[in-house]
Formats: sequence, C-alpha cells, structure tokens
Amino acid sequence: MYILTINSGSTSIKFKLYEMPAERVAAGGRIENIGFEKSVIRYVTDFLNEKSDNIKIKNHRAGLDYIIKKLADTKTGVIKDKKDISAIGHRIVNVGDRVSSHRIIDEKFLDVLRDCMDLAPLHNPPNLMGVEVCFEVFGKNTPNIGIFDNIFHINIPSKAFLYGINYNYYEKYRIRKYGFHGIAYTYMVEKCAELIGKKPDELKIIALMLGGGSSAAAVKNGVSIDTSMGFTPAEGLIMSTRCGDIDPAALSYILNREGFTPGELDDFINKKSGVLGLSGKYSDFLNIETGYLENDPDCTRAFECYCYRVKKYIGAYAAAMNGVDAIIFGGGVGENSPIIREAILSDMDYLGVMMDKNLNDDRSIKEGIISSKDSRVAICVAKVDEELIMARETHSLLTEK
Amino acid sequence: MYILTINSGSTSIKFKLYEMPAERVAAGGRIENIGFEKSVIRYVTDFLNEKSDNIKIKNHRAGLDYIIKKLADTKTGVIKDKKDISAIGHRIVNVGDRVSSHRIIDEKFLDVLRDCMDLAPLHNPPNLMGVEVCFEVFGKNTPNIGIFDNIFHINIPSKAFLYGINYNYYEKYRIRKYGFHGIAYTYMVEKCAELIGKKPDELKIIALMLGGGSSAAAVKNGVSIDTSMGFTPAEGLIMSTRCGDIDPAALSYILNREGFTPGELDDFINKKSGVLGLSGKYSDFLNIETGYLENDPDCTRAFECYCYRVKKYIGAYAAAMNGVDAIIFGGGVGENSPIIREAILSDMDYLGVMMDKNLNDDRSIKEGIISSKDSRVAICVAKVDEELIMARETHSLLTEK
Repeated sequence: MYILTINSGSTSIKFKLYEMPAERVAAGGRIENIGFEKSVIRYVTDFLNEKSDNIKIKNHRAGLDYIIKKLADTKTGVIKDKKDISAIGHRIVNVGDRVSSHRIIDEKFLDVLRDCMDLAPLHNPPNLMGVEVCFEVFGKNTPNIGIFDNIFHINIPSKAFLYGINYNYYEKYRIRKYGFHGIAYTYMVEKCAELIGKKPDELKIIALMLGGGSSAAAVKNGVSIDTSMGFTPAEGLIMSTRCGDIDPAALSYILNREGFTPGELDDFINKKSGVLGLSGKYSDFLNIETGYLENDPDCTRAFECYCYRVKKYIGAYAAAMNGVDAIIFGGGVGENSPIIREAILSDMDYLGVMMDKNLNDDRSIKEGIISSKDSRVAICVAKVDEELIMARETHSLLTEK
Repeated sequence: MYILTINSGSTSIKFKLYEMPAERVAAGGRIENIGFEKSVIRYVTDFLNEKSDNIKIKNHRAGLDYIIKKLADTKTGVIKDKKDISAIGHRIVNVGDRVSSHRIIDEKFLDVLRDCMDLAPLHNPPNLMGVEVCFEVFGKNTPNIGIFDNIFHINIPSKAFLYGINYNYYEKYRIRKYGFHGIAYTYMVEKCAELIGKKPDELKIIALMLGGGSSAAAVKNGVSIDTSMGFTPAEGLIMSTRCGDIDPAALSYILNREGFTPGELDDFINKKSGVLGLSGKYSDFLNIETGYLENDPDCTRAFECYCYRVKKYIGAYAAAMNGVDAIIFGGGVGENSPIIREAILSDMDYLGVMMDKNLNDDRSIKEGIISSKDSRVAICVAKVDEELIMARETHSLLTEK
C-alpha cells in the first residue's frame, strides 16, 4: 500500500510517498515559498530525476493539488490516482499531553488539535493546515494520521517535566516540559539498538539531535525520561538562533534595558540568539566550524559554548539514568561534524566514553559505531530519516486496526 | 587583633568580632528590622548570654553605633574602644568581573562598587550601605575589606559563563554568569579537602550549597569552573522561592498571559516560584520534607523536583570536570536534611557514589564524611561558617600588606 507523509510548514510542504511495508520511497519532494511570487518544487530520489519546477503556488491547497497531480501524472507519475494512497501521515509538532500516542485524526480530534495551537504557535498552525487540506482533497475515506513530535517524551516523570514555578500555571496554562524531535529520536533509538545488536529496552541511550534546532534526550529502556527542549523548542542547548538555557532574571533584565515588546522578546529568544548571537556572524554551523578551525575568535566562542552545553547535558542525563550505554548523534551537525562530536566527547573517560578518531573522521560512515573497542559507552552516528518513522507509524496504526 | 565582619542587608546587620589569627569569636549577633518600629538585636555565642534587645534602630548608622556601644560596653563588652578593631570585612554579593580578588575598599574603589549596584539590586545596595557607614564610624585609618561573594567563580571559562545570546549584551550590559555563594564555597572546599586529607588542588569537588537560595559549583583543583547561579541568583537549582532554570519562552508566555509589569515578573521569578510555587504551600524546606514524609502530594512534587534538579547538576559537573572525587553538602538544607541528601545521591553508583546510610542519618555529625568505605566518591557534610572565611580573608589581606 502507498502511504504519503506530509510535513506542512508555514510556507512549505515536504512530502514522501512510501510503498509499505516494503519501505520503498516511490517519490518525494518539497514545495517552498508557498504564497510567494516564485514558489519552487524540488523532487528527491529518482522521482522526476531530482528536477525542480518554478511555478506560483498560492496556498497549501494548491500545493497539495500540485503534488497529487505530479504523483498521478500519466507519464511521469508513480500512482494512477490519489485513491491509491491508503493513508497520510502528518507531522504535528506539539499535541501537549492531550493524547499519549500517535493516532487517526477524525473530525472530533481536529478540534483537539485546534485547541493545541498555542502550544507551538510557529509550527502547529501550518501542521494543522496540512491536515485540513488533506481532509478536503482526499475526503473522509482516506485516514489522516497524526504523528506527534512530542509524543516520544510523553512518559517523562513529573519531576522532570515540571518547572520550579506555580503549579497553578501547569494546571491553568499547561506550562510544562513537552520536548520535541520525537520522530527523530524514535529513529535514533531504534538505529542505536540495531547498531549495538541489542534491544532498546536493554539500553540507557543519550540521543543528541544536533542541527539548527538542537536537543538531547535521555532514553532509558526505550522510554524518554528527560529531554532538553521544554515547553517550547527554545530551552536547553544553544542552537542556531535560539538561546537555550539562560538565567530567567537575565531575560527580565534585558527586557527592561531594551524595552522589548513581547513579540520582540520572542524574536530575541528564538531568532537572534544561539551561535548567531554568540558569534555575531553566522547561524550556520558549517561557518562556525570553519571559523573555529581558522581561529576566528567569534566563531571559537560560539563553537566552545555550543559543545560545552551539550557535554553538560550528557553528564546530566547520565546522572538521571544512573549511567549510559550509548550516545547517538543525529541531525545536520550530529551527522556531519566530526569536529563537533569530538569536542563534545573529549575528556569524558570518567564515563568510559572513548571515541575512535579514525572512525569519527571517516565521512564514508553515514550510520555506524564510532567508539573505540575499549569504550564502555558505544558512540553511534545516525542518518535520521523522520519520514520513514512517519510512514512506519502510519502503517502500523492502519494495520493494527 | 580584632576583626569585625559585617553582612549588611536591606533591614539587617549581621556581625561577628573575631580575635585573629586565633579565630576566636569574641562576640556576634544580628540586628533585624532596621527602620521598623520594633527592631530586634540578637546576640550569639557567649556574648551577652545569647540575649536579645528590643529597641528601635532607625537606620544602618544607628545600628552600627549600637553594635559598637555594646562591644565596647565597660561592663559587658569585649573591647575597650572601637579603635581596638583592626579592620572590618564586608560581605558584598556581586562586584562583577571588575576585580579578581577580595580587596581593601578605598574611596576610589567605593565608586567602582557604586557602579556595580545593578549587578545585584537586592543585595549590593545594602552591602554598600554597610561599607559607607563603617567609613563614617571608624574613619579612614581602619581598613574596610570587601569580601565578594562572586569572586570564587571569577576564573570560570567563557564557555561556561557566556549565555547563548548576543555577545554584544555581555559587552554592553555585562550579562554573563557570575555565580554566588562564593564565601560559603571557599569554606566548603577547604573543609572537604581537610576531611579527605588531601589538598584542594588535588581534587575535583562538587559543592552543593543547599538552603533558601541553593546553588552548585564544580571546583577543579581548587578553582570554580562552573556554577549554577548566573547573572543573578535566580538561575540553576529550584530554590525556596526562586524558579531556577526554566524555558525562556515559557517565561515570555507567562509574561503575555498574566500581563506582568517588569517588577511583577521579577517578583514571580524570585519570590513566588521555587518549592513555594510547586507546592503551593511552603517555602520552608522543613515543611516540604515533613509533607513529603506524610505523602502530601504537593510537598512530594516540590521535593522530587528539587532533588532531581540537584542530581542533574551533579551529573553535568562531573562531565565538566571529567569525574568527581568528592561531593560536599552545605547550607541549611545540605547540613540538616539526610532525607534530601539521600534522595539526591540515590542511584548514582555509575559514578561510584555510595552513601553510608547510618552516617548520613547520624545527626550528631555536623561536619564529616558520610560515604561508605567502598564509595569511589567521598560524600561530605560541612557546617558552613561564612564569617570565619570573611575574617580569614580580611586578616590575610591585612597581614600580606
């Protein structure tokens, strides 16, 4: 059967069509700049030979229509009709603690989703738009499945998810740690166990999803017990443009001094901080790394702060789990930067963490173990495939019914 | 020689008179409710048989005059004249990174101090008032020594003291992690080394100053390399009424929803959060602990969140130092709560942390080692004496000149 995965952003739709259970990618691509004068559609894999189209796509509905037209094109398409698609898996960033698992989105549950918009004001509304458009285009007989990015963390205990503030704000505003990157963590935990040759429920894993948005998770026996992102994705690690952890009163001090409006404060936290703020130059980690290697002091500052923060989270999560069996890196930075991986894991032999420098530097290893043989903690790298997890979860939900 | 230590708060003066270098406490006490209708002066040690006076003290100057009158009283006093006092050591909470050590406060340095007021708006101004009053009362020939609570952390590296924000804000507003409780940490690190029978420069120590204000420090070879309080004392651990670490965007969310003024936001962060906010009942740890033992869900929530946060900081600092040789507890909670110490250090055998339950529960041990003999990490308890450190530092500065 064919399963379509949709990741709907504010001005983009990312899609992949899977033939399941074979997990064969039949087609995939991404529409960007929806609503702008010049939209771009890029195709991945063999589908349309990785070409791209330039055409104005006025809204998400038009975008989805275009995708389906391409998928079912009589000459270049891969399906005959949209009816060939058995289900659509939608990435939805934050459903809060209203449900405890991925699930089919029916009309009633759409209302629950609508009630969760302010739990991820940048991500949830476009995610919901993707669902609503699929309801229109595919009709009621094609199931839409919600794959929720926070659900992986749904079982973290209250001692980890509550903040040190009025309990009343948890009850009234649902302010708690939710955590994100859950679809990526699902992939990483499975991959990590597979690489080591054990089952997730035998392992204490620290998973590091390092990229523009960066986070860490403590996964004990397959269950997330803590994670660095919180109520929003701004908490925890230093990121590309998000500040991560900061003295709350420093924020209040800046607010006073700069006279920020609430919107400006959010922009400051989410868009102007991170390695961009620290370096004053680059939000891109590749530039930061290059500058670091060239002894640029601004890049070095950002590089060192970034890596040190990750190192401390590894330590904190080792304490939370009473040890660690494996550390797995994923995300654009985690997959592709041996230098950052090395800086993070240097001088951690107190935990028995020993990297194999040759394996770490070997860029032909896309997924694998990069620790030395005498390391007590396995160090792994994963090429995170979130769509695959979405297709699997969607397929699993369909077939278990 | 006699050295007077002064800890001047907004409505209080805490004082001790030491005979140095013998470290003998000749007198000590505390004036409370300065400026109110009913001030109280309590005396400690044998001085005035631990009695207390009730009298209106209109301001800090009057308070200091009263203290000197009592110290030099012909019948009950311990000195003949204020001229017998060779120097005064003042606790000053935050001098920022303007100096790198404790020092004599001359007229010129008073201006530097005045320039640091907003680095600790609740503490620095009354601290400064204490210095100014001593200048008036003792005249220029009696040296006033500044003992700065942040100086212990002055050498933490930039990767630990910078936040993930605009570097510009560090240059413009001096926003960085300063850290506090430094006088207490000085005591704890010396005591810890003494208890173990080693020198501080041979040890990786995690010091936990747990009380109404709580913080942790990573002390490697005698030098603080990281600490949990930051630009202000609101960061890090959950405290009596301060929130500690929280998603910065959660704060912005609350600010919007509640429509806080800047002052209300600061009150929320510093006075209405912590275990008080989490329990909705108590800011006092003794009540939280009692409630926890009685299975009160509100107290249990606060208790568990508090201890879990400390545990994670221990893990983070073990990572920052590549291991830990000793963990030392101090502060009202750290000294007096075997239950909280046990909850924090339970399930940490991955680090080789093994507590001796009998030693931990033995309330006759005011200062000592409470780890089991096979623990790879020494666990210690200290009865922190900040005034002693202030007297020692003052004496040392006087005699080295």
